[in-house]
Amino acid sequence: MTLNKYLKIGVLGGMGPEASVAFYNRIIKLFQQEQGAQYNFEYPEMLIHNIPSPDNVEAGVEDELADYLLSSTRLLESAGMQLLAIPCNSAHVHIDKVTKAAQGKVMNIVEETAKVIHQSGIDKVLLLATKSTLKYEIYQPYLMRLGIEAIVPSASHQELITRSIMSVCDGSINNQTRNDIAKLVAAYSDAQGVVLSCTEIPLIIGQADLCIPCFDTAEILARATYEYCLNRN
Amino acid sequence: MTLNKYLKIGVLGGMGPEASVAFYNRIIKLFQQEQGAQYNFEYPEMLIHNIPSPDNVEAGVEDELADYLLSSTRLLESAGMQLLAIPCNSAHVHIDKVTKAAQGKVMNIVEETAKVIHQSGIDKVLLLATKSTLKYEIYQPYLMRLGIEAIVPSASHQELITRSIMSVCDGSINNQTRNDIAKLVAAYSDAQGVVLSCTEIPLIIGQADLCIPCFDTAEILARATYEYCLNRN
Repeated sequence: MTLNKYLKIGVLGGMGPEASVAFYNRIIKLFQQEQGAQYNFEYPEMLIHNIPSPDNVEAGVEDELADYLLSSTRLLESAGMQLLAIPCNSAHVHIDKVTKAAQGKVMNIVEETAKVIHQSGIDKVLLLATKSTLKYEIYQPYLMRLGIEAIVPSASHQELITRSIMSVCDGSINNQTRNDIAKLVAAYSDAQGVVLSCTEIPLIIGQADLCIPCFDTAEILARATYEYCLNRN
Repeated sequence: MTLNKYLKIGVLGGMGPEASVAFYNRIIKLFQQEQGAQYNFEYPEMLIHNIPSPDNVEAGVEDELADYLLSSTRLLESAGMQLLAIPCNSAHVHIDKVTKAAQGKVMNIVEETAKVIHQSGIDKVLLLATKSTLKYEIYQPYLMRLGIEAIVPSASHQELITRSIMSVCDGSINNQTRNDIAKLVAAYSDAQGVVLSCTEIPLIIGQADLCIPCFDTAEILARATYEYCLNRN
């Protein structure tokens, strides 16, 4: 029924919902800006699943979150989606399970980000992430393989990052949140770059607020998904 | 699998995509602001279908658009969605077919808007809509039933509205677009209110830009969907 030839994109979203809204918007903007899309049929077919999954910012849910992701994978693929993306870094603790269960391509935000950092030549980065992303060392193996060292924020800084992410999730984010995070980044003077390795963080802070190169994992995932969606052969 | 008791919302979206992104965002904000939602499981399960359907802003596609809507209805209901919403006024030319085909509740943006205008006591409104919404007289019967008169913009004003909507659809919208539409509204001095009866129009102009009461159909649909989703018994 699709008029265009783009791959159909399934999104395992809602973790949190604000980041999924932003991901949907980023994909639309990429099609407008780089493909000149304006009519409905010039955009890809997408199915965005807002999953009411357990919290994965403050808590570190394991099996239950995996059940949600696998169930959503089945739902999206049954509906014909050919390419899956998860705009949530913490949920990537289960990326291998999702990739194994899926019939089609599953984008990996961590792998795509590590590639972009490597291409930039930077080899020491600060991770701004949820406690679970840090606790399960979701980034370290991918970075290490490419010779990139990861700096993990201190326990008190992890608390501040968590509070900031939750202010996006409950809609209470303000300018102070942005200032707090910028100040936190400045405290790690040996970092050559900073990875916004939670998809809520680009909703708080961006390159314009930081003095060192900034890797926006939400943007990197959107671009990688967009590219894959075009190069469907 | 859902932890909360909200109805599962299916969205027939992508007509255009920008309006669907805004609708998704509005639902999330309503749950944050009125239910205090912050954790993933405190938001409803949603499935947003970005459908690459034929253009319905400049053209007036009939049967083909209905096929897309009915196919999406099946897809969303097969995936377990219990409440459907279409954040596109023009697509409501087929609302009766969708309502008949659906197993669950289908929100009707036109009916919900007419109710809100009626409650306000206003009985003469200007319709800012796509040519197809005007051509198929999607609003008139619902308004007439409640004793509300509809003012239809002139042919040249319809052209201007179409160009403005397309500037949202291709991402080229700017301040001039907002000024043009505000000026257009002012030309209809007998209108007591203005209906933003295309879900792209609230992305151009809002109550703050207008001197007469403004009925934002995108906001009205989001609120009605939210209320229905809560009152699931």
